Amino acid sequence: MPDTAGYEPTERTVPTRSRERASYDKELVHAILDEAYVCHLGFVRDGAPVVLPTLYGRVGERLYVHGSTGSRPLHMAGRAEPGLPVCLTVTHVDGLVLARSAFHHSINYRSVVVHGIATQVTDPEEKRTALDALVDHVVPGRSLDSRPADAKELAATAVLRLDLDEVSAKVRTGGPNDDEEDLTLPHWTGVVPLVRSYGTPVPADDLDPAVTLPDYLAAL
Amino acid sequence: MPDTAGYEPTERTVPTRSRERASYDKELVHAILDEAYVCHLGFVRDGAPVVLPTLYGRVGERLYVHGSTGSRPLHMAGRAEPGLPVCLTVTHVDGLVLARSAFHHSINYRSVVVHGIATQVTDPEEKRTALDALVDHVVPGRSLDSRPADAKELAATAVLRLDLDEVSAKVRTGGPNDDEEDLTLPHWTGVVPLVRSYGTPVPADDLDPAVTLPDYLAAL
Repeated sequence: MPDTAGYEPTERTVPTRSRERASYDKELVHAILDEAYVCHLGFVRDGAPVVLPTLYGRVGERLYVHGSTGSRPLHMAGRAEPGLPVCLTVTHVDGLVLARSAFHHSINYRSVVVHGIATQVTDPEEKRTALDALVDHVVPGRSLDSRPADAKELAATAVLRLDLDEVSAKVRTGGPNDDEEDLTLPHWTGVVPLVRSYGTPVPADDLDPAVTLPDYLAAL
Repeated sequence: MPDTAGYEPTERTVPTRSRERASYDKELVHAILDEAYVCHLGFVRDGAPVVLPTLYGRVGERLYVHGSTGSRPLHMAGRAEPGLPVCLTVTHVDGLVLARSAFHHSINYRSVVVHGIATQVTDPEEKRTALDALVDHVVPGRSLDSRPADAKELAATAVLRLDLDEVSAKVRTGGPNDDEEDLTLPHWTGVVPLVRSYGTPVPADDLDPAVTLPDYLAAL
């Protein structure tokens, strides 16, 4: 199947509520993933849930997260067979939805939830590809304009892989859904958009003044 | 102890890595929580982690999340004794940290992680307070300028409470931490700030043109 096909819905990826907002479209899922900087990675430790924010990168239908070999989820995934059950979630908040009724207040958002088993990447080639993807996720093209990891850094870094397989997106757009009988209430109603933008890049104190801002940053 | 005291660190809230970035300061935790719109709520279902984005509200040292009585975590929390073990995480991404080495790339962020047992709110008074807090979390003061939930809406809505008890914040600020031997590399290095702002409010199609934008929205 081409990349543009959809993910197969499963019992876990069909929401109990607002099913009309769910999507399994790969292009939509990729776009939501590529636009965010941080995911929230959930795993189970001693029977209790843990949710940690972390950077990630995407290579096709694979997501990668990384960390010190001593960090909890990476350490746990390295010891678990066949890997560590995780849930990786990414959310954009696009607007505040103000209804006339308190009940219908909401937010406009785009989210992706990925369920699966995270496995530790042991192949050196794949590990390098994953680390490049993590850097390029921060700023596209940046991996080519920085010193690659050396052997010591590679050894100190663990990388987890999570395949995009059991995946869903959920999107809310548009205005409030007030009930018919509330339409004449005197409250302002509508959407306040939220916008993410980039500030002026701040050079490091020790940056050689001869090094100018690269085009890929000026373009942000 | 006054509200400004710190939370007691526990084994779960002392990070294995970058301990110098951890904080247990209540004011800092409250500020991070109050500035975000969405939390990521983790819980365990059939032994696997689930992480869902959701709105929340804070009343002093209590957090509230809400949802349909049929939604998974709310339904589960209502049936579990003494409640549902959760991990509630909130993250702000403040900047992209571009180091000379791929290894030292990072982001500036502020996050809060709350561990605990979420319990269903059954007291009608507390439920109302919680729902007001959820609306006021979207826009402060909004609960007074909207129709409160009626009996039917209250019955359809479940509210979970999570006490701020086992809590930590983690904050990264400042520039890249390149290694000494990389300082002369020719790559631009520094921080690209990320800024969240509000767009112009978009009135609902069916808003009576006589209803003007309230001051608390114009001030955003």
